[in-house]
Amino acid sequence: MALLGSTGSIGRQCLEIVRAFPERLKVVGLAGGRNLTLLQKQLEEFRPQLFYSLDPDFNPPGAEKVSLEEMAAHPDVDLVVVATSGGAGLKPTLAALRAGKDIALANKEVLVAAGELLIAEARERGITFRPIDSEHSAIWQCLQGEEGKEIEEVILTASGGPFRNLTQEEMAHITPEEALRHPTWKMGRKVTVDSATLFNKGMEVIEAHWLFGLDFEQIKIIIHPQAVVHSLVRFVDGSLKAQLAPPDMRLPIQYALSYPERWGNSELPQLDLEKLARLEFEPVNLDRFPCLRLALQAGREGGTYPAVLSAADERAVELFLSGQIGFLDIPELISWVLEQHEGKAHPSLEEILEIEPWVEEKVSEFVRSRGGVR
Amino acid sequence: MALLGSTGSIGRQCLEIVRAFPERLKVVGLAGGRNLTLLQKQLEEFRPQLFYSLDPDFNPPGAEKVSLEEMAAHPDVDLVVVATSGGAGLKPTLAALRAGKDIALANKEVLVAAGELLIAEARERGITFRPIDSEHSAIWQCLQGEEGKEIEEVILTASGGPFRNLTQEEMAHITPEEALRHPTWKMGRKVTVDSATLFNKGMEVIEAHWLFGLDFEQIKIIIHPQAVVHSLVRFVDGSLKAQLAPPDMRLPIQYALSYPERWGNSELPQLDLEKLARLEFEPVNLDRFPCLRLALQAGREGGTYPAVLSAADERAVELFLSGQIGFLDIPELISWVLEQHEGKAHPSLEEILEIEPWVEEKVSEFVRSRGGVR
Repeated sequence: MALLGSTGSIGRQCLEIVRAFPERLKVVGLAGGRNLTLLQKQLEEFRPQLFYSLDPDFNPPGAEKVSLEEMAAHPDVDLVVVATSGGAGLKPTLAALRAGKDIALANKEVLVAAGELLIAEARERGITFRPIDSEHSAIWQCLQGEEGKEIEEVILTASGGPFRNLTQEEMAHITPEEALRHPTWKMGRKVTVDSATLFNKGMEVIEAHWLFGLDFEQIKIIIHPQAVVHSLVRFVDGSLKAQLAPPDMRLPIQYALSYPERWGNSELPQLDLEKLARLEFEPVNLDRFPCLRLALQAGREGGTYPAVLSAADERAVELFLSGQIGFLDIPELISWVLEQHEGKAHPSLEEILEIEPWVEEKVSEFVRSRGGVR
Repeated sequence: MALLGSTGSIGRQCLEIVRAFPERLKVVGLAGGRNLTLLQKQLEEFRPQLFYSLDPDFNPPGAEKVSLEEMAAHPDVDLVVVATSGGAGLKPTLAALRAGKDIALANKEVLVAAGELLIAEARERGITFRPIDSEHSAIWQCLQGEEGKEIEEVILTASGGPFRNLTQEEMAHITPEEALRHPTWKMGRKVTVDSATLFNKGMEVIEAHWLFGLDFEQIKIIIHPQAVVHSLVRFVDGSLKAQLAPPDMRLPIQYALSYPERWGNSELPQLDLEKLARLEFEPVNLDRFPCLRLALQAGREGGTYPAVLSAADERAVELFLSGQIGFLDIPELISWVLEQHEGKAHPSLEEILEIEPWVEEKVSEFVRSRGGVR
């Protein structure tokens, strides 16, 4: 396997699984981000044949430095784990698909921005994406053995984040520190904020649309604070299947690596229903979560809108985390950028790649119009 | 298909499914019990080629009267639905297996009494039982696509019945009317009482042992009052799958008939998690449910013990329903009969068939020793 994004939260947990199964998993390539100290350590521990680093001056001996695309398409690689963040995963994912590799996908921006393109390439080669999101992994697990049977709908669960009971007034004053304190999941900074705004759930709806070939009407969301039911599938006969586990990303990561097998791993936590005692479910209030509403709208509109949505949120969250805009400015900024955009159906790779710089520019315009920092 | 036990609760609901799919399901044979008026109506509506009735004087025109075994093995029958009650289903089930028929099994006494024998016959011919119990249907559904993957354990859910919060003193005074008022499931009289004592759950553990080839240590029970999670499977990697639906036997019946397909049926109720709001889980207290403890012991001991257990409970429930013994006498009677029994490993069909009359005799002895009625 090649692991793109080895120094991020998913990348590190992926290597925990590799460590637990040294005889079943072999790391051929590691691609890290800005954390060179960690990447150096990982290279020493896993001794891959290939590596990639953003830093041109980082050239440790013992491994060949390649581009992300070269790594993804390398003949010695069978499975590419795409755990990069933001738009960086798009080109290597496409390269992996075109080289006929299996793909385990943790980077939802990739599918949100270029789902139509990627799914067409995958279908052409008979490749199925192995989702690493807990929700999509749950749906994928529930669909095993049910191929060709009509799905009535899927129900994505959302923990609801830490702010689901706050008023609008209270939400306006949420600090980055508060937004980074997620009650159930241990995740990267961006996805933690996206969970608090439920933007993340909107991205997951778009992802589910592409991964499972579902209409948006077939994808529901339900609040489930305990975050142990990771999603459900309702079949045409009314039977529902759910997948449950403690909130720990290592299980969906391991399932994507072990698929179609399942491997016993004593390091993974076990769910105890008796201790848990109760599972709760509530409807989502879209009025409280404008970011979710925007994501669903952009998903339904399709074309280039989801790519704009994703890039705008990425910048908005950065601005929020660096204290330049408030929590409620996140949806305002995304909404404004989407309004500026003139959508295009069936965008090409080039058109998708042009979106990020365009959004950058628009976001700067927005920030300037607001007098820089607040 | 042939339907054995067409006038019982499962049989009638099975015919509702047939009615909903007249182009997919054809009734070749109907076997009814003592309710001749209903059997007559069913024969007129479904016009099967074959019928069976307990009553020698019941000979309506238009269909051929055959024995249960003949019906089960008839060349025009592909699937045999065994929805008889008590020991009556054993010989026809064996006849169906030996004729290579698919079998949908609602009669748990059959598998409890003769599991070893039946599973060996089924395995020899590559036949898989399609379970109609909601719990076993749930497990079976969760196992689709997971063949060959190690199951860590299955968790059978139990609604806990109407008496799970009563004291022993209160339990002693439970009347037949109270025991027949099940809070969630609409079922036959015997199984309703067996649900109140949790004896039914013990039978299901023995059934799961045979159906899924599990050790007794791999079969857990959990109280789940809402009765919408019908059971769960835990795989070796810690992932749990659950099947959910409103408590309505028509879904597991339909699944057994439609398998491996799923059919849309607007008459089946849909589960609404938002309305349900919460699912609760509690440990089972074996001290409160001596019938469950006895069933688990007999299951573990194996051999002829489960057949004795099943027959003793059948008689005990009859005596309770006719007011001859009290609610807490049910486990006392079963326990006493089991103590009288000298078990035999790997019993033959003949040895199993001898058990019912032997238990009858022992039960009469017990009743006489207690001075007849209480």
